[in-house]
Amino acid sequence: RGGILSLTATDTAPLSGTYPRTCLRRYGARPLRNEFKHEVGIRILIKKVVELAAQHDIAMIPLFAYAHLHYFKLFFMKDRGASLTDSLMERIGYLLYCFKCANREAVVDVLKLREDCPVCGGRFSVGGPLWLGELWDKEFVDFLHREAEREESVHRETKRILSLIREESEVQSPGFYVLSKLCEKLSIPRQPPIRKAVEFFEGVRTHFEGDGFRTELPHREVLRRAKELKLIMEERLKGGRS
Amino acid sequence: RGGILSLTATDTAPLSGTYPRTCLRRYGARPLRNEFKHEVGIRILIKKVVELAAQHDIAMIPLFAYAHLHYFKLFFMKDRGASLTDSLMERIGYLLYCFKCANREAVVDVLKLREDCPVCGGRFSVGGPLWLGELWDKEFVDFLHREAEREESVHRETKRILSLIREESEVQSPGFYVLSKLCEKLSIPRQPPIRKAVEFFEGVRTHFEGDGFRTELPHREVLRRAKELKLIMEERLKGGRS
Repeated sequence: RGGILSLTATDTAPLSGTYPRTCLRRYGARPLRNEFKHEVGIRILIKKVVELAAQHDIAMIPLFAYAHLHYFKLFFMKDRGASLTDSLMERIGYLLYCFKCANREAVVDVLKLREDCPVCGGRFSVGGPLWLGELWDKEFVDFLHREAEREESVHRETKRILSLIREESEVQSPGFYVLSKLCEKLSIPRQPPIRKAVEFFEGVRTHFEGDGFRTELPHREVLRRAKELKLIMEERLKGGRS
Repeated sequence: RGGILSLTATDTAPLSGTYPRTCLRRYGARPLRNEFKHEVGIRILIKKVVELAAQHDIAMIPLFAYAHLHYFKLFFMKDRGASLTDSLMERIGYLLYCFKCANREAVVDVLKLREDCPVCGGRFSVGGPLWLGELWDKEFVDFLHREAEREESVHRETKRILSLIREESEVQSPGFYVLSKLCEKLSIPRQPPIRKAVEFFEGVRTHFEGDGFRTELPHREVLRRAKELKLIMEERLKGGRS
């Protein structure tokens, strides 16, 4: 009780959708090979840990998670009790994803899953079951960040990731957007800097992708603003040419 | 490879829906507390075994299963290989059940699950994930039955169950009907003998319930025949009175 479990996984290919059948065999979940496939992989891994512990009425509470190079790293806090464990199990569900318009929806109740994307009418793909709860405990993130900043021996790269995750943990949406993918999908002629885009979409950056961002805006609104962004960039391009 | 695993479970209360949250924690599946709840429990247990083995690329092929007194007993044949294991995983899915009209549907693809019963418009409940494949290997059942009949020392009760399962394994539907429940639901005034009912519904008996039967008829047809049966029984009752 109160102990911390740290877990490193290098099995990123199956978890991130390169080998979906292997993922289903090993982790009992379907991956999604989309722009946030590593986050999906981490959420599947968390599900597996929560589920394994739940069999013994142990609650493994996710504290911190990140993807780096070719591995995932997770931290959990251990607690006990059936009702606490149940409340974790209630945050296990599915992610619907539309490969046509990049719409994504989190669904806990299997009976609420649907095949058709309400935004573009495309077909939903499904990932999961996976962890839909928070990836980061805000207090724990702040603590780590503070300690790392104080300590001179901590690697620059570590500090950079911690700083990114501190920002990222402000918006714990399941899934994020990748600016270059969004620009490609909507034929936006020139990609704005990520910091500008983050402001434009009222989001935060993510450590998963250099040009990725999380936002709480609904997908329709993201698409609306992306179209707006397209007009702006087209105008600018014309301006630059003339 | 080729080895046989025999498994006895006395954890029937959670598996059969008395403690659904415990079932979710221990077996990662939702039970159904309906007329074939023990079959659902057995199918959840099979799923768990198939899933556990699949993590190690081991295929556990269900051979034989039964419920007796307060325990479940399962037999599996062990084999190896990723593709064989995958084909087992493909037979894991969900059972939709309507508590209003007793309609039941097996669904493998989570995206095909639905909330509304197409027969009566009621709300579906969902059980699973669970094993939707066969519970009995016909050859193995015949072998057991033959051996038991030949052997004098085999208990009468064992022979009785084996004989029932030999009949039952001819129709391996997920879920069965219970005559008394059906009569109650449709206000059928007098229950015909189970042998007659089995003929009437083109079914086979089940070892799970004394007055249960399996049939490959669609649910609508079962309901239609049950209404017919009701008229017949009402006529007979009138005849008896006059």
